[in-house]
Amino acid sequence: MIKHFLSLSSFPQSDLFSLIQRAQFFFLNQHQPDKINHLLKDRIFANVFYEPSTRTRCSFEIAAKKLGADVVNFVPENSSVKKGETVYDTLKTLESLGVNGIVFRHADDHILDLLQPQLKLPLINAGAGKNEHPSQGLLDLLTLFQEFGKLEGLKVAVCGDVKHSRVAGSLMVAARIFGMKIYLCGPQSLMPDVSDQYVERADFDKVVPEVDAVMMLRIQLERHENLDLNPKTYHDEFGMNQSRQLLMKKNAIILHPGPFNRGVEISDDMVEHAQSRIFKQMNNGVAARMAVLEWAINGSKK
Amino acid sequence: MIKHFLSLSSFPQSDLFSLIQRAQFFFLNQHQPDKINHLLKDRIFANVFYEPSTRTRCSFEIAAKKLGADVVNFVPENSSVKKGETVYDTLKTLESLGVNGIVFRHADDHILDLLQPQLKLPLINAGAGKNEHPSQGLLDLLTLFQEFGKLEGLKVAVCGDVKHSRVAGSLMVAARIFGMKIYLCGPQSLMPDVSDQYVERADFDKVVPEVDAVMMLRIQLERHENLDLNPKTYHDEFGMNQSRQLLMKKNAIILHPGPFNRGVEISDDMVEHAQSRIFKQMNNGVAARMAVLEWAINGSKK
Amino acid sequence: MIKHFLSLSSFPQSDLFSLIQRAQFFFLNQHQPDKINHLLKDRIFANVFYEPSTRTRCSFEIAAKKLGADVVNFVPENSSVKKGETVYDTLKTLESLGVNGIVFRHADDHILDLLQPQLKLPLINAGAGKNEHPSQGLLDLLTLFQEFGKLEGLKVAVCGDVKHSRVAGSLMVAARIFGMKIYLCGPQSLMPDVSDQYVERADFDKVVPEVDAVMMLRIQLERHENLDLNPKTYHDEFGMNQSRQLLMKKNAIILHPGPFNRGVEISDDMVEHAQSRIFKQMNNGVAARMAVLEWAINGSKK
Repeated sequence: MIKHFLSLSSFPQSDLFSLIQRAQFFFLNQHQPDKINHLLKDRIFANVFYEPSTRTRCSFEIAAKKLGADVVNFVPENSSVKKGETVYDTLKTLESLGVNGIVFRHADDHILDLLQPQLKLPLINAGAGKNEHPSQGLLDLLTLFQEFGKLEGLKVAVCGDVKHSRVAGSLMVAARIFGMKIYLCGPQSLMPDVSDQYVERADFDKVVPEVDAVMMLRIQLERHENLDLNPKTYHDEFGMNQSRQLLMKKNAIILHPGPFNRGVEISDDMVEHAQSRIFKQMNNGVAARMAVLEWAINGSKK
Repeated sequence: MIKHFLSLSSFPQSDLFSLIQRAQFFFLNQHQPDKINHLLKDRIFANVFYEPSTRTRCSFEIAAKKLGADVVNFVPENSSVKKGETVYDTLKTLESLGVNGIVFRHADDHILDLLQPQLKLPLINAGAGKNEHPSQGLLDLLTLFQEFGKLEGLKVAVCGDVKHSRVAGSLMVAARIFGMKIYLCGPQSLMPDVSDQYVERADFDKVVPEVDAVMMLRIQLERHENLDLNPKTYHDEFGMNQSRQLLMKKNAIILHPGPFNRGVEISDDMVEHAQSRIFKQMNNGVAARMAVLEWAINGSKK
Repeated sequence: MIKHFLSLSSFPQSDLFSLIQRAQFFFLNQHQPDKINHLLKDRIFANVFYEPSTRTRCSFEIAAKKLGADVVNFVPENSSVKKGETVYDTLKTLESLGVNGIVFRHADDHILDLLQPQLKLPLINAGAGKNEHPSQGLLDLLTLFQEFGKLEGLKVAVCGDVKHSRVAGSLMVAARIFGMKIYLCGPQSLMPDVSDQYVERADFDKVVPEVDAVMMLRIQLERHENLDLNPKTYHDEFGMNQSRQLLMKKNAIILHPGPFNRGVEISDDMVEHAQSRIFKQMNNGVAARMAVLEWAINGSKK
């Protein structure tokens, strides 16, 4: 059976936990190539990004190479790609060319649902639409698990443009699977319309002292030109900085999916603060993606 | 002696047939890396495409990697490349850098003839000018041979912009080598001025019931803006669709080099029709290019 | 200790000479993969070029692959890269992703000095600012050493836009280390303000008969539009051509870092003249970069 990696929501808790443990194995053995460089030998993945990405694309490429696989970077020509069907033809072409899996990013929220039943190779969601970014979700879970040794009951404040954030989307999915509590913070206009026992809106300053982690989201200044968003005002109201860090629990951590705007959603001195795990997240991202690629090819590891 | 792969016309029938057989070997062993991944180990190819390509470029890249070779994608900067001499300098540079072969695409019909005597490494034509696309020709021959167990005497209708098609060019060359019959179909203005015992103009609807294969060519809508070409009218007159498919022989096949315009030269339902071999062609393309790369490096295999 | 490769000036003579000897080893064994393809196995380098480059980028990529390493090409998005800090974040990201070294090019003269103390992986200068291009310097030294069996006492005329040339910059550094004599030739406006026992301004025609090598620099026509530089006049005054070649010593050689403008700083017939080592330099460039990559990862080889 083809194992598509589309959403964390398709995983039962035990399977998702197995994936986190496998990612932890890769984290621990990242500098021991002899233990991992044969696992996906002779496999070829295609990176197919219809939206720009350097971080996620490189992360998947490095993950594949560390497992002994190779990567073909397929750069879609915008000119010949205008309809959903043509995306299908592109992916079907790569399937025909013999690649073993497709790492895929696209702006459309629903394209993966349409495509996956028609493909005979694993499709790996590297960020589709504004709903989910499940490999980011996995690396966030890995980071939290490394820190706290558990996931159940953890409280995380997510602050920023939650409405348009795939990262927040996958974290909310994970919260429901593992019983975490997510507080959504930020400007009212950027909040999604969700509320249940795992996810609720909250005042940022009020929850900062209570949570185990704050996940700061990048303010996409280029998208909010007409929002009249002033970086300094935003930072004062919703940014992570020393005054908020001092309110955090001593063992609470600061997360950010990157890239970050220093001085907007996070102050310069917080990026590499002792409580920040931002670059740790990036490192974990490679381990998480190794687990995803291996799972997609070999089936879930227990 | 340097083995350039420039045109099918340089191959005696027996050598070209050996190449098809070698491609068939790679087709059959495409999922058995242990049998093939050492054949071009430690070789490095450069992909040098002066015209855009994703399909052919990826196909060669995957072919190289399946044989254990590596690929450097050299993206010519249009700014520094204005004269034929500079193309020479670029290729001579890559030769000096130690690459073992150059996979090359360029708009100029004659540039390969000028360049090849001056280079000390194999030059592989991945589409030069409008004359030939010999690795595409090889994959088409492989597809026909797999289907019919022979090439001599096969009848193929090629329909579309034959005049500007490298694909048709290489198929016509192959027809003369193997004794196939090619019928050229499509608008009068897009027909080349050729006619001999192997190649002749024909009415599409008249030959469809007689041929073993129809090769549909992509209508390059972007090139024919001033041709006043109406996609629907074109489709009615020259497109592959169910009504024409029903006229075909039961064992005849539909070919297309891709990418295709669904609804223009081929209807949506024909692309993956039981008689279509379009995605099979793409799969065969990797096998054919493995044979080409190996031949260029090691010399012709018997 | 992290071994950054930033400038030739940081090397004592004996260490730099060891690096030349190691490059010579790679030159001699470039066609014997079994002797070299394991040396950097399982390492991953990132090519990070903030300025366009095909030659140097490919050269490093091929060097890495010949040593068994892999390369990720990170293409900085100009839009998200506007401040020095963000370059830092980009490199820190790649460090976090687990790459083993960064091959780096940037327009800023001083960015490497700012960055290197903050990074925990080797940073390799592939041309930063207008000051140095040390891997080019190393390949030039290798080429001179192969030719003359020594470096001390050699006389080299460097002709062209010396002021903006990284290549000249690294050669001048090397001259001071090995006791070579560099004559700077070209239009007055393109001369730097330097003069010591190793480097002095000179009249091109006057020194051509005396030197062991002439290093022709590319006239960056695109930069000198307002200079009112006439290619023909320039060639007559400062170009390498047959009449000047005839004045050279019989064993003197012609160098050029490439890419070259045929007919401007060098005439067509001089590029591959028997006394030219221009394509040899490119070949040596791969060997030199293998030595650099290995040195950066493993520490200096004796």
